[in-house]
Amino acid sequence: MLESIPFAVRRRAIAAAQGREPFDLLLRGARVADVATLEIREADIGIVGPMIASVHAPGAFSDATVTHDLNGLLVTPGFIDAHVHVESSHMLPHRYAEVVVPQGTTTIFWDPHELANVLGLDGIRYAIEATRNLPLRFIVQASSCVPAAPGLEISGADFRSDEIRELMSWPDVAGLAEVMDMRAVLEAQPRMMGILEAANASGKIIEGHARGLTGPGLMAYLAAGISADHEITSGADALEKLRAGFTVEIRGSHDYLLPDVVAAINTLPVIPTSLTVCTDDVFPDYLVEFGGINDVLRRLIRYGMDPLQAIRCATINNAIRLRRDDLGLVAAGRRADLVVLSDLNEVRVEAVYTGGRHVAQGGRMIVPTTETKPPLDNTMRVGPLTSDDFRIRIPGVTNGRALIQTIKGARFNAWSEIEVEVRDGFAVVPEDLSVMAIVHRHGRNDPKPQLAIIEGWDRWRGAFATSYSHDSHNLILYGHNPAELALAANTVIGMQGGIVVVKDGAVVAQLAYPVAGMLSLGDPAEVAAAHKRIVKAAGEICTWQPPYRTFKALSGQSLACNPGPHLTDLGLTDGTTKEIRPTLIRAM
Amino acid sequence: MLESIPFAVRRRAIAAAQGREPFDLLLRGARVADVATLEIREADIGIVGPMIASVHAPGAFSDATVTHDLNGLLVTPGFIDAHVHVESSHMLPHRYAEVVVPQGTTTIFWDPHELANVLGLDGIRYAIEATRNLPLRFIVQASSCVPAAPGLEISGADFRSDEIRELMSWPDVAGLAEVMDMRAVLEAQPRMMGILEAANASGKIIEGHARGLTGPGLMAYLAAGISADHEITSGADALEKLRAGFTVEIRGSHDYLLPDVVAAINTLPVIPTSLTVCTDDVFPDYLVEFGGINDVLRRLIRYGMDPLQAIRCATINNAIRLRRDDLGLVAAGRRADLVVLSDLNEVRVEAVYTGGRHVAQGGRMIVPTTETKPPLDNTMRVGPLTSDDFRIRIPGVTNGRALIQTIKGARFNAWSEIEVEVRDGFAVVPEDLSVMAIVHRHGRNDPKPQLAIIEGWDRWRGAFATSYSHDSHNLILYGHNPAELALAANTVIGMQGGIVVVKDGAVVAQLAYPVAGMLSLGDPAEVAAAHKRIVKAAGEICTWQPPYRTFKALSGQSLACNPGPHLTDLGLTDGTTKEIRPTLIRAM
Repeated sequence: MLESIPFAVRRRAIAAAQGREPFDLLLRGARVADVATLEIREADIGIVGPMIASVHAPGAFSDATVTHDLNGLLVTPGFIDAHVHVESSHMLPHRYAEVVVPQGTTTIFWDPHELANVLGLDGIRYAIEATRNLPLRFIVQASSCVPAAPGLEISGADFRSDEIRELMSWPDVAGLAEVMDMRAVLEAQPRMMGILEAANASGKIIEGHARGLTGPGLMAYLAAGISADHEITSGADALEKLRAGFTVEIRGSHDYLLPDVVAAINTLPVIPTSLTVCTDDVFPDYLVEFGGINDVLRRLIRYGMDPLQAIRCATINNAIRLRRDDLGLVAAGRRADLVVLSDLNEVRVEAVYTGGRHVAQGGRMIVPTTETKPPLDNTMRVGPLTSDDFRIRIPGVTNGRALIQTIKGARFNAWSEIEVEVRDGFAVVPEDLSVMAIVHRHGRNDPKPQLAIIEGWDRWRGAFATSYSHDSHNLILYGHNPAELALAANTVIGMQGGIVVVKDGAVVAQLAYPVAGMLSLGDPAEVAAAHKRIVKAAGEICTWQPPYRTFKALSGQSLACNPGPHLTDLGLTDGTTKEIRPTLIRAM
Repeated sequence: MLESIPFAVRRRAIAAAQGREPFDLLLRGARVADVATLEIREADIGIVGPMIASVHAPGAFSDATVTHDLNGLLVTPGFIDAHVHVESSHMLPHRYAEVVVPQGTTTIFWDPHELANVLGLDGIRYAIEATRNLPLRFIVQASSCVPAAPGLEISGADFRSDEIRELMSWPDVAGLAEVMDMRAVLEAQPRMMGILEAANASGKIIEGHARGLTGPGLMAYLAAGISADHEITSGADALEKLRAGFTVEIRGSHDYLLPDVVAAINTLPVIPTSLTVCTDDVFPDYLVEFGGINDVLRRLIRYGMDPLQAIRCATINNAIRLRRDDLGLVAAGRRADLVVLSDLNEVRVEAVYTGGRHVAQGGRMIVPTTETKPPLDNTMRVGPLTSDDFRIRIPGVTNGRALIQTIKGARFNAWSEIEVEVRDGFAVVPEDLSVMAIVHRHGRNDPKPQLAIIEGWDRWRGAFATSYSHDSHNLILYGHNPAELALAANTVIGMQGGIVVVKDGAVVAQLAYPVAGMLSLGDPAEVAAAHKRIVKAAGEICTWQPPYRTFKALSGQSLACNPGPHLTDLGLTDGTTKEIRPTLIRAM
């Protein structure tokens, strides 16, 4: 969202700062967290319209239309989320705002990558239009990876250099979003070079996704003009990237990494300005229950980061990254995006002000948010499927045996193969293994399911399906019984998108995503509760061991841009070699 | 100067970083100052075209077209000067570059305020055009104060909101330059509000000049959208402004303030990113002999600032202020603007690279700079003057006495009055006092000299004249003897601008400023030597006591925007009350 402060407001602020006019709002008796100097000071904050007009000694001015007594509570700048996919909350943008604003987040840098992969440019347009007048500042990026693995998958749209050039020319687009296809960058593949050329020419910032990148590859990635990373895998990785000159966006999603990251950062002579925080993807139930940036900060502090330094990462450091010197500091002239904390170490948010308005109190929004009509065209462009669609056909063999290719492992995949029985032309999936299916749903490829036998997930005792599967968001399914898989698929198709769990031949949990097959129309409490039921039900039909094999791995399993084997709507793909493999190795 | 790195260069850098192509230039065996983390590390730096392609472990790659062995010398990012008026060097831009680049300065934020006050928009245009292809990056600002004291003086141009709107729309203009008329801001005077409205609407940064501003005035100034200050008067002032949210640009010009400023800053928990450095106005002889930013840094370190923190202020902190994340860090992807130091504490510069080129070595440029034809129209739009033009006429009195208004003091002025003898219709200037004169030279006002008797300068034993007098740059003169004053004036007029000292009825030192009455065509050594002779000669005709009454006070004496009495081409003015006073109080 682009905004400028009307100059008439500045005129009033100039007068109010000098006591010649009342403030619109005076926050009295605050302790202010100064994230420039890392001091805490007692002060009153005078607000005019959307901006801070004055931060002055307690009691110096008292003339104000409205006065709030803060009684010594701590005021910090509003939190900024350096990198987020709002879609993972499965909420409409105004609903997302209702959740995160009371948690202290006042600005997010949104990569509407998932919407873009389904709706194309219209997805980005919706992200911009739907967020113009909300109490949360959505700064929108142009998604760089539509699709994420060109040649290995087909999503709902294709962004090449022309589309990126177009997007970067929009005033509302502030940067190019995470460049995920690292290999395409390092190998200077033509499509990626076209995208990066357009982005670099715009002068806007370019976000990275440098998972595991190190040494020469890291240098090449920076040389391409990419300057931030949120895919930190260890303390050493964080240090290498900070020292290389990246903006490092610490992500909360991999909690087990954070103590090591904090310990490593604390060894530096100073915590660099280039250290920031982000949430990336957060499930609705987690977001509602534990929080977003507030939760990340709380854990960083718990793991040993100085509390003010943590706040600094989420405020001024992110403002610097976004080149937004109207944000990130409790100072006259800046936007009045403020968080009131009753406990710094616990990041306990009492109240939130955005654009000078008191918008949240005690964890709840106290102002209404405006819904912009979402795109409701059915994006599930696939007809009803049958049980046979979920059987692996072995051409040329009616009854016998065949050696077929499998994917082994959950999060970190490897190729494997197994010998299966062939009965009536179909492979018999061993009792202890499962089937994964991908159904193209964008009307741009054959909607016949692609199937693979997966090892390492144990047997699915039911079926799971979702239209939200990174990054092409084709319909993804897991299960064993073809009838249950078909039921799960048809349920999602019938809801025009959504997520469903089938057990014992019946649907036991479901949540509709009628917006692009990824966003619910429900309110946050509904979405969170339904999602929690989904996770619970899925847990009952699948063994969630070892612990890292989390629910998240489900939708990540199709991430064809990552190294190793994946299943996409084009078949079995290899993110390392970029090849597409046949399921069947040989009939025997 | 706007620049973008051609994408073909980035492609080569991507390849070179991975060892697939040679670097254009490899700096081997460096110790790199990391101003993000404040560490020093051993590394080699691979350069492709104007950019850094890789900063890697010593010896990791050796394939390069050219290799320089640094043998353990320290490499820092190129220094950035946050605020400078190049005109005060009296050198053409390419000559200025020849001086400061070997000192380590690779980027300057230039307010061509003096050129603008003489040449108007053409002055800014020249500042942009003349600096496009130099080894020094000139980032040009739109001057906000043309003239600096509207209504109290007439300079060569008037920038109102229309001109500022026009300038802010130029891609080469990066911000609005120091807003000097603080009172106009605080009182929300219409002309200033129009200028600030245009600047705020552009979204570009707005530089301040908040001399002595504190408390509510400081808040109002910030609320107006102004966010930096270089007019620091004490350590307490620096702290108040940093805490208020300003970018503080420590200026080297008032050396006696710096120990206090450093001590104050060292009391903060962290040195904020908003602390930067600048030179503002530096005389040519000082600049050549002692330096610019390198000299400021050297003194800050001497007064107790951590050396890497000082370098940080001049590099990444200024890059952040300028929203230039391609500058300020020795990191892949950024511009290869590098300084090689043999001594960090002394900021001893051995070599300088700008845009990947080795441009200076051992204090000397080793590449040619390109001169852009300067504007050479005669800007001294005033005919020869006579002795009588420098006599104070007392209307209505032929012989007798009169009480006349005087200006008392040098730097800090006060109104005073004296009784003088009137002989043949002219005041007889007492033997122990002197005369100051201002001659309008822009052809926009009556070019008859305005005269005032000044107290506190003792008697000038000769005459001094210069066409470089802040901020309207009318011809300013000091002296006693009308014939000597006329000779000084006519000498400057004859040179089409310049500076001159007359003693014993003859010119004893002079330097021509044929470009806008402020820039010499000479090379740096010539300009510096001539300026040194001027200062020496002026010292012989004027008592330089007390010490603060420096040579600088001469051209500052006409700064009508400052509080208190000044003489301008409109007469005796009061910067506090904004009134114009008559010289004559009453004939007696």
